[in-house]
Amino acid sequence: MKMSFFIRTYLEKYRIFTRLPHLAGSQQNLDLAKQIRDEWMEFGLDSVELVPYDVLLSYPNKTNPNYISIVDHLGTEIFNTSLAEPVPEGYEDVTDIVPPYSAFSAKGQPEDELVYVNYGRTEDFFKLERELGINCSGKIVIARYGKIFRGNKVKNAMLAGAKGIVLFSDPADYCADGVEPYPDGWNLPGGGAQRGNVLNLNGAGDPLTPGYPAKEYTYRSSLEDAVGLPKIPVHPIGYHDAVHLLQHMGGPHPPDNWKGSLNISYRIGPGFTDGLNQNKVRMNIHTNNQVTRIYNVIGWIRGAVEPDRYVILGGHRDAWVFGGIDPVSGAAVVHENVRAAGKLMKKGWRPRRTLIFASWDAEEFGLLGSTEWAEDHARVLQERAVAYINADSAIEGMYTLRVDCTPSLHTLVYDITKKVSSPEEGEEGMTLYQSWHKRDNSTERDAPWISKLGSGSDFEAYFIRLGIASGRARYTKNRKTERYSSYPVYHSVYETYEIVERFYDPSFRRLEAVARVRGGLIFSLADSPVLPLDCVEYAMSLTKYANSIYQLALKHPAAMQQHSVSFDSLFFAVENFTVVARDFHQRLDQLDTSNALAVRMVNDQLMYLERAFTDPLGLPGRPFYRHIIFAPSSHNKYAGESFPGIYDALFDIENAVDWQKAWDEVKRQISIAAFTVNAAAETLKPVVS
Amino acid sequence: MKMSFFIRTYLEKYRIFTRLPHLAGSQQNLDLAKQIRDEWMEFGLDSVELVPYDVLLSYPNKTNPNYISIVDHLGTEIFNTSLAEPVPEGYEDVTDIVPPYSAFSAKGQPEDELVYVNYGRTEDFFKLERELGINCSGKIVIARYGKIFRGNKVKNAMLAGAKGIVLFSDPADYCADGVEPYPDGWNLPGGGAQRGNVLNLNGAGDPLTPGYPAKEYTYRSSLEDAVGLPKIPVHPIGYHDAVHLLQHMGGPHPPDNWKGSLNISYRIGPGFTDGLNQNKVRMNIHTNNQVTRIYNVIGWIRGAVEPDRYVILGGHRDAWVFGGIDPVSGAAVVHENVRAAGKLMKKGWRPRRTLIFASWDAEEFGLLGSTEWAEDHARVLQERAVAYINADSAIEGMYTLRVDCTPSLHTLVYDITKKVSSPEEGEEGMTLYQSWHKRDNSTERDAPWISKLGSGSDFEAYFIRLGIASGRARYTKNRKTERYSSYPVYHSVYETYEIVERFYDPSFRRLEAVARVRGGLIFSLADSPVLPLDCVEYAMSLTKYANSIYQLALKHPAAMQQHSVSFDSLFFAVENFTVVARDFHQRLDQLDTSNALAVRMVNDQLMYLERAFTDPLGLPGRPFYRHIIFAPSSHNKYAGESFPGIYDALFDIENAVDWQKAWDEVKRQISIAAFTVNAAAETLKPVVS
Repeated sequence: MKMSFFIRTYLEKYRIFTRLPHLAGSQQNLDLAKQIRDEWMEFGLDSVELVPYDVLLSYPNKTNPNYISIVDHLGTEIFNTSLAEPVPEGYEDVTDIVPPYSAFSAKGQPEDELVYVNYGRTEDFFKLERELGINCSGKIVIARYGKIFRGNKVKNAMLAGAKGIVLFSDPADYCADGVEPYPDGWNLPGGGAQRGNVLNLNGAGDPLTPGYPAKEYTYRSSLEDAVGLPKIPVHPIGYHDAVHLLQHMGGPHPPDNWKGSLNISYRIGPGFTDGLNQNKVRMNIHTNNQVTRIYNVIGWIRGAVEPDRYVILGGHRDAWVFGGIDPVSGAAVVHENVRAAGKLMKKGWRPRRTLIFASWDAEEFGLLGSTEWAEDHARVLQERAVAYINADSAIEGMYTLRVDCTPSLHTLVYDITKKVSSPEEGEEGMTLYQSWHKRDNSTERDAPWISKLGSGSDFEAYFIRLGIASGRARYTKNRKTERYSSYPVYHSVYETYEIVERFYDPSFRRLEAVARVRGGLIFSLADSPVLPLDCVEYAMSLTKYANSIYQLALKHPAAMQQHSVSFDSLFFAVENFTVVARDFHQRLDQLDTSNALAVRMVNDQLMYLERAFTDPLGLPGRPFYRHIIFAPSSHNKYAGESFPGIYDALFDIENAVDWQKAWDEVKRQISIAAFTVNAAAETLKPVVS
Repeated sequence: MKMSFFIRTYLEKYRIFTRLPHLAGSQQNLDLAKQIRDEWMEFGLDSVELVPYDVLLSYPNKTNPNYISIVDHLGTEIFNTSLAEPVPEGYEDVTDIVPPYSAFSAKGQPEDELVYVNYGRTEDFFKLERELGINCSGKIVIARYGKIFRGNKVKNAMLAGAKGIVLFSDPADYCADGVEPYPDGWNLPGGGAQRGNVLNLNGAGDPLTPGYPAKEYTYRSSLEDAVGLPKIPVHPIGYHDAVHLLQHMGGPHPPDNWKGSLNISYRIGPGFTDGLNQNKVRMNIHTNNQVTRIYNVIGWIRGAVEPDRYVILGGHRDAWVFGGIDPVSGAAVVHENVRAAGKLMKKGWRPRRTLIFASWDAEEFGLLGSTEWAEDHARVLQERAVAYINADSAIEGMYTLRVDCTPSLHTLVYDITKKVSSPEEGEEGMTLYQSWHKRDNSTERDAPWISKLGSGSDFEAYFIRLGIASGRARYTKNRKTERYSSYPVYHSVYETYEIVERFYDPSFRRLEAVARVRGGLIFSLADSPVLPLDCVEYAMSLTKYANSIYQLALKHPAAMQQHSVSFDSLFFAVENFTVVARDFHQRLDQLDTSNALAVRMVNDQLMYLERAFTDPLGLPGRPFYRHIIFAPSSHNKYAGESFPGIYDALFDIENAVDWQKAWDEVKRQISIAAFTVNAAAETLKPVVS
């Protein structure tokens, strides 16, 4: 097989970057930061710097390991979960592999009966409490991973009064049909477990310095006042261990859709039916929170014409272990994008606008490196940032492209994918757009499916807090047929270079395609005289979201009438925005592009459009989520919610304590959404009344 | 006397605008708005529009007047305060003069003993409670006007548990020595009283729609949830009435500095010593809150080169009665500035940037018109507003110029006043700068004194919330020798055209000088290719403020040491800002002004500097006060406080319940201030790292 230059250089870095663990706060991850800084300088960037912050991280206690036990009525531990994952072949000599743990878990050794809470979603707890009459208060709960961000599961458990939560990977959610466990296939082995932070930061960044960068002089709150730390112990286990905890549970059988695919009779609990029926579960958690120095690598190419306009490509460098998929498949893409920019510069090229490349640290601990940098530079970013493109894992499946982005980037994404070749075998001559289109057509029009941005990666502070047009692209699974969660080995020790080389992308052409999409986005955004942002696409999306939230409200027709709830103002606002956006693009077609100031003015309108959707007051109870159109779901950080203020006001409203107040809040949120859409429209109107 | 063109046209409008009352929400004030709109169009503005909002206003009940009584032990009203002020000569036939009242007072008829609380300042209540052992809880308090904003007096009374508050004008505070009451002089007559709102909005604008413009579709909170409404009755009286309430009070004699100049023996109370010693005070307050339509007039001149850069001149139009001083002395100035701009345009001139002229409504009810418009257009203002110049009362004394502005405008103010002639008799050939300088030299350097911006007029939302460089200028009294508060007839029916014509400025040359300063500011800001903003002046002010707040903290040396409180980070930040500001202006001197984009870039840095001092999180408990360097004092809305977050954290800290927590908050605020100054410095650095 003939390898492209991209693939050859990419592979080399990819292999090197995944040899050792690169946990945030570790010496290895600092060494890697320095290496990246040095190489980016060699590639030819104008400047590259290491930017440190001192943030709260969380590590297991090295001498006092975390595990879960079954204890009998005498208090004897009759079963203990494993302390580590079996290390994959070839990595046996690697030290400093952090065992599976839930970062920022509270310490403690709670002991009690066990209750199975399915995925630990809001609706799962509603079912338990409202339909099954099971009270989790004072119990230890066990939830399977999947469907939602683990931090939301922990929050739900706390709200239900649980005193600890065990998270396990059920084969139903972490094994694909007909696939072998790693190393024979790409499924999760029974000894593997999912690391991950269990914070509920809601965009705050470092838990001790919400709103401000964690510099040396920055005031730090006490741990009691920290943002988002769970108050209960949390621990993740694999399915081999989970069987032991789950197989003899008592209580009712769960509904069919709560049953995973372990070879046991699922019961909800509480309690066990085996032995003396007095067995309990004990959690032994000794994880420590610790203020630790992290390092972002930030590289700059000065723009030739508008140096004060920034296009950012950022992705994280820190990994739970080897980072074979998350993040190195993506971080190595950034590296090649920098190399490519450097090569162009050596030929005399310089982008119109400034390009910023970022290798973030401590993403796995709550998007900390990227959020602290956003906090540190919020003012200049708000004034100058044109777009932020995220570069986390570049591949999580073998099927087609997946793009999540702000609506104004839709058109650019389509245009770029039309210039990239399909990486799939047998699709020679086909474009990535065509390949993607045939695999994943939008339900709304004849074009590939593009999703809203949720959260769970480093674009969050840039998009949701600062209102910078953002997007991400990766290769993914078939979302309609492949029902497992994320990718099976996610955050386990089995995320290696080899799993990608053997299974996900043996030709590396999928990764190359993703690199070309990400690179195409930043180069186009940095170089086009008129910014390639499409306001009419934003209008179309707003229309869709308005209809969708209206449909949701219509589930309560009587209450809508009784409380005089109207969505008219929102629909008028969206219509207003639509007309204004069309007019704007019509004027744009007439623009004298030789008039530097005239171009700058429309570009300012385009750049600031995303900013206009933010509100400094933030969403209720979530001051750092300032985007009125998009926010991470309150019930699943990974998912994006449109018109989140209205959505949250409507959520479970039939069970509100005070209906008048609850519907007043819906009306208030509709009013805020309508105003924000009108205000955004105003920014696109001719600049003088 | 030969009159200038300015004076002739100004006088005509001034006379017309003060013939009738122009209370916000009244037909007269709408009629005036339409007249102004029509005239501005005739003057030649590109567009002029009436912009309505529906805000909460407050009016006395026309059929059930407000007054205060002394009631005897049988409940009989043995004395009642007057229901209106004696109307000045020449205005006897005017209808619709609103009687003196406290706008937004709660309704009610509380009846109890009276306690005299001096000015009702925080320190006055501290003295009462801590030194004199007098408890105001459940009592009616009486405070004299002056020293602080009346809303703060009401808030303090509520905090002290009072069930009502009477406000009176003491001659000590509203009569100048050797001056006769109006109409023989410009002192307040004994029958005059001060109208005014008694809100504690903290910048929220309309109390029912905080953060959002009060449009038809806007959600309105209930009155219970409204921002800043007093929960107790409030009423203002003149000194003739006050004598009756105060002359027979019981309780201890007050400290000497609490004694006003009424011819009575001041006592603190509670209670009365006359009659059966069972007399009480009863308040009869029937004022109604009412959502009412108000109208701003907004006029535009499209900028020739940078239409998307806005320079705003705004002042209010609404008046409590005739508005002879407040606001028409200033509103008529705006009118002449518009006329002057129109004349220039007819000669072919067009400013480089867009000029916006605003005639605000409902300033007297809490800066409502200006704040709603700021909320409505927050996004475009944040992107595009270069500066906001306020045009409230143009004269409040006969001594010299008074300027309050952001530090970056200092130099421009000095430059402009050097081009304006002194209006004072006997100073022919002298500049306004020279006249001002010799009368009011700064304590810090050899230049006229310029003050910080506080609040109490329409610049508040533009400066404190949105971070737009702002300033105001007016003619004032001698602040060192004239100790009365504000000007004597403030907010009374005696604020007429004649009081200015006869006493304040018979030649109208002082008003002309103020008009030339205000006009000079906006024309220079709109027309200079490089914005005339001085960052080094900002650095000097920051240095002064940092020293000043540090000195304040040093009053607690033991606590500072015990809690390891350091101001080093703030001093480093200010030093950093100082170096960066100097470098910026050095680079500015080298700027190639023929390069349109290069000029735009430095202008963006200059424009956004003020924005950089704002923080979307706002000050503690005051989300709409977002400027970290300046805020209205928490104890007196009229006064500006520098580093208000630190100041408030230090305030009365020796009496804090939890010292650890209190000093932690000081440290947090120092950290926020240091970060903000550093972040502002970053915006002035070269735009690429």
